[in-house]
Amino acid sequence: MSSEKSISLSHGIVRQDRKLSDGRTISYYDSKSIVREAVDSRPVENRPGLGELRLDALTNEWVVMAAHRQTRAFLPPKELCPLCPTKPGLQSEIPESSYEVAVFENLSPSLAIAASNWKLPELDGLNTPVVDAAGFCEVLCYTDDHEANFGTLSLEQIRIVMEAWRDRTREISKLPHIAHIFPFENRGVEVGVTLHHPHGQIYAYSYLPPRVEKMLKVAGDHFAKNSRPLISDIIAREIKDEVRIVAQNSDWIAYVPFASRYPFEIHIAPKVFTADLAELSDAQADSFGTVAKEALQRLDGVFGIEMAYMASWHQAPVNVGRDVLGLHMQITSIRRAPGKLKYLAGSESAMQAFIMDMKPEQSAAQLRDVKI
Amino acid sequence: MSSEKSISLSHGIVRQDRKLSDGRTISYYDSKSIVREAVDSRPVENRPGLGELRLDALTNEWVVMAAHRQTRAFLPPKELCPLCPTKPGLQSEIPESSYEVAVFENLSPSLAIAASNWKLPELDGLNTPVVDAAGFCEVLCYTDDHEANFGTLSLEQIRIVMEAWRDRTREISKLPHIAHIFPFENRGVEVGVTLHHPHGQIYAYSYLPPRVEKMLKVAGDHFAKNSRPLISDIIAREIKDEVRIVAQNSDWIAYVPFASRYPFEIHIAPKVFTADLAELSDAQADSFGTVAKEALQRLDGVFGIEMAYMASWHQAPVNVGRDVLGLHMQITSIRRAPGKLKYLAGSESAMQAFIMDMKPEQSAAQLRDVKI
Repeated sequence: MSSEKSISLSHGIVRQDRKLSDGRTISYYDSKSIVREAVDSRPVENRPGLGELRLDALTNEWVVMAAHRQTRAFLPPKELCPLCPTKPGLQSEIPESSYEVAVFENLSPSLAIAASNWKLPELDGLNTPVVDAAGFCEVLCYTDDHEANFGTLSLEQIRIVMEAWRDRTREISKLPHIAHIFPFENRGVEVGVTLHHPHGQIYAYSYLPPRVEKMLKVAGDHFAKNSRPLISDIIAREIKDEVRIVAQNSDWIAYVPFASRYPFEIHIAPKVFTADLAELSDAQADSFGTVAKEALQRLDGVFGIEMAYMASWHQAPVNVGRDVLGLHMQITSIRRAPGKLKYLAGSESAMQAFIMDMKPEQSAAQLRDVKI
Repeated sequence: MSSEKSISLSHGIVRQDRKLSDGRTISYYDSKSIVREAVDSRPVENRPGLGELRLDALTNEWVVMAAHRQTRAFLPPKELCPLCPTKPGLQSEIPESSYEVAVFENLSPSLAIAASNWKLPELDGLNTPVVDAAGFCEVLCYTDDHEANFGTLSLEQIRIVMEAWRDRTREISKLPHIAHIFPFENRGVEVGVTLHHPHGQIYAYSYLPPRVEKMLKVAGDHFAKNSRPLISDIIAREIKDEVRIVAQNSDWIAYVPFASRYPFEIHIAPKVFTADLAELSDAQADSFGTVAKEALQRLDGVFGIEMAYMASWHQAPVNVGRDVLGLHMQITSIRRAPGKLKYLAGSESAMQAFIMDMKPEQSAAQLRDVKI
């Protein structure tokens, strides 16, 4: 295979790239010395076509139309899990019979590589043309253990995931047309998970998503006025106020934000401003796991159940705002009580006006009170 | 009772205001001649205090903290429904033993009347003060029939609801501190409904919700450039394209928007630009029901089940943008197939980047194909 390559990353982690039968690349990230040479022997299937980007003229926001995704895998039984390693009777997405961390392009991507002359149109209201949904979507499998969770991975395993996040951010930044890279995890059927295997995703957009555009504007204005990144001042307030801190070490802090939008919401940020995952120092990368694990264990401990959550990496866009918009992870849970979920209903969905049923200080106290 | 009053509205509908035992006003809207004099004999309970508005510094958006709402009624059995008329064994929120349409202030409001000297602070990043969550929240009961649905109400009943919407918009506009009025309905436990009785709500905000602010900016820019309201040009495109129209009559049009965000999304708009519900003509008010009923029947018909939906009235803010931001109802359903819901997961929630699994033209065709 011409595209095979092996690359040494930090912390002794090695990435090996292989091809799946339909041409997609799979990258293995290993801390142990092992040659990844299993061949994907599944029949070649046609890749789905590109979706469309259409402009919502009421808001000047792009909406991705990805009609081919309607048939994607939906809660398959464990024996048919496409993210488990390949084994007798199961040819999964991952040809190897075991792996540490594996990343591959999504089989039904919302956003995919477009023609080299693709260009995001200038916004022109109702006259804005429809274009291919350029971008890139990957699946990041945290472990080959179907029953594991991110929060219960070992620190060593989280370090490999972190190295994969850093490397993917660097690599995807080099692809054409990419404006913003968004690694995230949805956990739990309550938030629409369609595959139980512990995994995250990476969406790389060819446009600035509305929330990023807004955060960029606000952070830019703050920087212009105060000559400091907004996230740095936010962290300074959290350290001063103390009451919303959930966990911290020398490099990272986890806190419930001052104006949280969900019954349980935790932000995890590096204490020193960092634009994105690729720019984290090795020391920061090494020390993320202890704070992340503690935050997630506290989250699961509040009601003694696995909490449904979304974990989202906010980072600076690829080409703009690198000095003002800082890396942080936003973990949100819609569970407000053991039998009750918070729904994004009328006010949140149609008005984007969030109503919180719990004070952040109360939620932070509940998280801190968990015995771990 | 000093505050009792009786007011004649259009279409022969009369509003009668009474007081509940805790001081809240209840307004009955009747097409039949009937005196509403039932007295609320429940013991007086203390009203909850005001929540807080806190600024999310990352986005410069207000978040409402309403911690007192955590204990609100949650899917009570039919015999204990607080929106049914009062009957032997049930003292509900509505003292009368029957009603046509009734509106009252929410028992656990997210937003409530604040002190007369309340003022929305200027945005000042992390220095922005916390203030009382000023505003107003009402419950609008569509009918006293617990088993009914908005879409199966008679045209006469919908006309009374419409008159209540118009009147509430007029009345709430007069309250202090109100910037925006948002009548909406959540239907179905899938979208977090906590009471099954057919009802809507009205949230009146003391600030412009983020979505309104965005739509106002976009509509203002469009008007400045084209001297026409944006919604008028959108409707002209829908009429020209035809393929996304779901229902229409001389005054109203229902269509799947060009860049819809949900598997089933229908917008219902007056064909002539109208700022808000209060400014609808009597003729427009009369003819809304046929298009709304057809749209909702088509929605329920797609899978032959009662579709969970959110129905949201977008209107011009109370004090600004009255010439540029036009009234329309946005109906969104998260059901993408009989056994599948669309969740607002990572991309939608954290990035506000919507991914649609179905083309609007396909969804419109499915809606039109429903036999009604």
